[in-house]
Amino acid sequence: MSDAHMFSVYGRMTALPGRRDELIALLHEGFRAGGDDSGLLTYSINTAPEDPDTIWMTQLWTDRAAHDATTRSGAVAAVTQRLLPLLAGKPEGSYGDAVYVHDRT
Amino acid sequence: MSDAHMFSVYGRMTALPGRRDELIALLHEGFRAGGDDSGLLTYSINTAPEDPDTIWMTQLWTDRAAHDATTRSGAVAAVTQRLLPLLAGKPEGSYGDAVYVHDRT
Repeated sequence: MSDAHMFSVYGRMTALPGRRDELIALLHEGFRAGGDDSGLLTYSINTAPEDPDTIWMTQLWTDRAAHDATTRSGAVAAVTQRLLPLLAGKPEGSYGDAVYVHDRT
Repeated sequence: MSDAHMFSVYGRMTALPGRRDELIALLHEGFRAGGDDSGLLTYSINTAPEDPDTIWMTQLWTDRAAHDATTRSGAVAAVTQRLLPLLAGKPEGSYGDAVYVHDRT
C-alpha cells in the first residue's frame, strides 16, 4: 500500500489483423529491455474482450524522469521501432499521477 | 511476476468542476468496502495531468466472478450510489484479460 505519487501510464493500441500476439511479445520485450533498475515498478498487458486485435497496458514508474530516460534509451527505442509497423493506428493513452496504489499480490 | 490470466479493469471518469478529490476519496472508500478477501489484488487511482477534474484507475482481480460479486455487493454498491452524483458524464473504460503482469513493488 502506498500513497507515494508514482508516475503512471495507460496505453491502448490495436494491432493489424491477426498480429496482436506479436505486439504483446514485443511490448513485453520492450519492458524487459529497460533492465531491472529502470524505475519501472509494475506493468500489465491486457487483451480486450471486445476486440481480438486490441491490447491495453498499464505501467507504474518511480517518477517521470525514469520513464523518459528508459523509453528513450537505445535498447527500448529499438524495440519500439520494431513494434510500430504492427499497429493498425495511432496508440491512445494517458499519463497520470498515481495518488493511490494498493497491492495485495 | 505472473502470467496468470487475472481479470483487469481500466476506468476513466471526470468529476464536476472542483469535485475530483471527493471522487477520489469515494473511489478509495469503495475499494476498501469490498473487504480484504474480495479478490481485488491491486488497484491504482491516478489524476490526469491534462485535466484537473479527471481521474483514471486500474484494477486487477483474481477473476471476473470475484469482480462481479464484489461490485454488486451491498457495501460497494452503496458507495457507488454516492459517487455517481459527483460525475460530469458517463465513465469510460475497458475490461481486460491480464495476459502479463510484472510487479517489482
